[in-house]
Amino acid sequence: MSKYWNKKINDAEPYVAGEQPKEGRKIIKLNTNENPYAPSPKVAEVMASFDIAELRLYPNTDGGKLVQTIADREGVSPSQVFCGNGSDEVLALCFQTFFEKDGNTDLPVLTPDFSYSFYPVYESFYDIKSKKIPLREDFRLEKTDYEGVPNCGIAIANPNAPTSRAISLDDISYICEKNPDSVVIIDEAYAYFAEPYVTAVTLLPKYPNLCVVRTTSKSYSLAGLRIGYAIASEELIEGLKRARDSFNSYPTDRLAQIVAAAAISDEEYHRECRAKIIATRKYTEDALKALGFTMPESSANFVFARPPKGLDAGLLYKNLREKGILVRYFDKDVLRDYLRITIGTDEEMEALVAACTEEIKNVQNS
Amino acid sequence: MSKYWNKKINDAEPYVAGEQPKEGRKIIKLNTNENPYAPSPKVAEVMASFDIAELRLYPNTDGGKLVQTIADREGVSPSQVFCGNGSDEVLALCFQTFFEKDGNTDLPVLTPDFSYSFYPVYESFYDIKSKKIPLREDFRLEKTDYEGVPNCGIAIANPNAPTSRAISLDDISYICEKNPDSVVIIDEAYAYFAEPYVTAVTLLPKYPNLCVVRTTSKSYSLAGLRIGYAIASEELIEGLKRARDSFNSYPTDRLAQIVAAAAISDEEYHRECRAKIIATRKYTEDALKALGFTMPESSANFVFARPPKGLDAGLLYKNLREKGILVRYFDKDVLRDYLRITIGTDEEMEALVAACTEEIKNVQNS
Repeated sequence: MSKYWNKKINDAEPYVAGEQPKEGRKIIKLNTNENPYAPSPKVAEVMASFDIAELRLYPNTDGGKLVQTIADREGVSPSQVFCGNGSDEVLALCFQTFFEKDGNTDLPVLTPDFSYSFYPVYESFYDIKSKKIPLREDFRLEKTDYEGVPNCGIAIANPNAPTSRAISLDDISYICEKNPDSVVIIDEAYAYFAEPYVTAVTLLPKYPNLCVVRTTSKSYSLAGLRIGYAIASEELIEGLKRARDSFNSYPTDRLAQIVAAAAISDEEYHRECRAKIIATRKYTEDALKALGFTMPESSANFVFARPPKGLDAGLLYKNLREKGILVRYFDKDVLRDYLRITIGTDEEMEALVAACTEEIKNVQNS
Repeated sequence: MSKYWNKKINDAEPYVAGEQPKEGRKIIKLNTNENPYAPSPKVAEVMASFDIAELRLYPNTDGGKLVQTIADREGVSPSQVFCGNGSDEVLALCFQTFFEKDGNTDLPVLTPDFSYSFYPVYESFYDIKSKKIPLREDFRLEKTDYEGVPNCGIAIANPNAPTSRAISLDDISYICEKNPDSVVIIDEAYAYFAEPYVTAVTLLPKYPNLCVVRTTSKSYSLAGLRIGYAIASEELIEGLKRARDSFNSYPTDRLAQIVAAAAISDEEYHRECRAKIIATRKYTEDALKALGFTMPESSANFVFARPPKGLDAGLLYKNLREKGILVRYFDKDVLRDYLRITIGTDEEMEALVAACTEEIKNVQNS
């Protein structure tokens, strides 16, 4: 509390990101869904040939070469692409731009309960009403739950976090069709880890109310760079640009633009890197299931795993932490029975499985 | 207008940045107050030794080494420093955090008329009432005009843009003292071009309501990098962090953090670069005055120059543009009698003076 902060800041319940350990101690970091592999070697190449004198000039507002690279890869026009300082910024601008209808602030945004925990933070920070739609058994999203519910917009992560489950393009079409006056945000932060890969970008020609949000943080190994983007109809992108120019006209910097463009254009490296993570995910799922864990089928670069009976998830989280293995634990509702575990390298996941095996033995012996 | 945008976005009057010419054509660019010199050679050094594998991990939220570098240079604690994605983002977060008192949304923010044109954009975007305090003769700010005026906060650029004039630390102290319950933002984007250099940072021990905002865009030649920062009491910085974590937890990226830290730590290069610009400003002022231009004494890396009688500023702007020289023109109120001209290299300013000389001759001959 401070007399210098306004009411909103005094009341705020800010987002709490996963723990970032201090450098020095050797940690197996499986708590923030980072990629275990380095970004494309093309990143080093563009950095080496970059002329630092360029940094004296403001960047291209829209993202310059980066926008063109994304548009080429996705088969859309550059005017359908909006780049921001990480997908969190892009999502925040989406919430500010699209949610509320005709000045009616009583209509809620629909989001699944449970989903990305930044959504309710945006809702509260931008004074948007919220309605959480419960997930069904085993965290399944039922499309008909998004029909006939008055709303000012919808935000769905696909695959969802922390549950790891994906919905189909048919489900997304259904939700867009049943809510033609609302913008439907599909947050595809983890889409590139689904097998097979599908994207709502292919639905854009049919739905002017669809806004697909992406990040380079996960599959492109660029969490440290902060580049996210939205792909949507020109009309929606134009709205995002108006919000941006009411806040910060130059959200992406010159270096980040060329680095992200280099990573996105290296499709072969991207494919290989995803394939390795998908294979390691399969190993992890099998090994944890063999230990008695249960989990929904993951389409993401993490699993959402429930420890076997007798092994408390919160306790397992703490014990893993003591062993130098960080995973994410949400001490809330039914989530508190699960751990969200990022897929790292094979060696890291073997260490995780070994540590879990040990914990289970300890429980059995006690 | 779009049915998918909310009322605020439909009503918005976004900020319009200075024109960024397409690459290719040779232009003398004196319209966005960029630095004509490349950033410190230390930037190239840290980029060359940067391990791109680091980019796979999220950055330090607060800025890591960058915050420590700024704190060391300014003689404050790291907990008194807040880093953002350019000073525009920092300013936007300041407006969202500090302005409004006890939920009273009727009190206005005081800003000089005229000042940085993003301030009214923030006010409108964040639903903050605005009261513009007229400047006195020759764009002079009179400190007593900020006394006894009910307000929820004050924002002053020092030196001011586009007028180029500075106020003294005594003036700032006076304004902080007379408004102890309001946060006073001093936007020092151009402070390093004042001669001698002074900063409101030295006043921080006396005023918990003072918030100094800086950018690396101008004096550090890093407009393309997007690093700005606020220096203030821990209490104010804590508020900014709450706003950040309600919006985007990682506003500055790993590369930008190390590049900005390298530039800020190279004090010698910074001093030399500023000295060159200050010398070129002197040349420019003298040469333009000799041609009959008038202008307030500049403490910034631009001059705000009024062409001699008979030469219309708007016409001069257009004619310079045709000659490949971009300057900034604000077609509004008394500002429309002036041009804001960035200080470039000696050669660039000689070209500008030659072009103005030609224009004056044309007027005299017509």
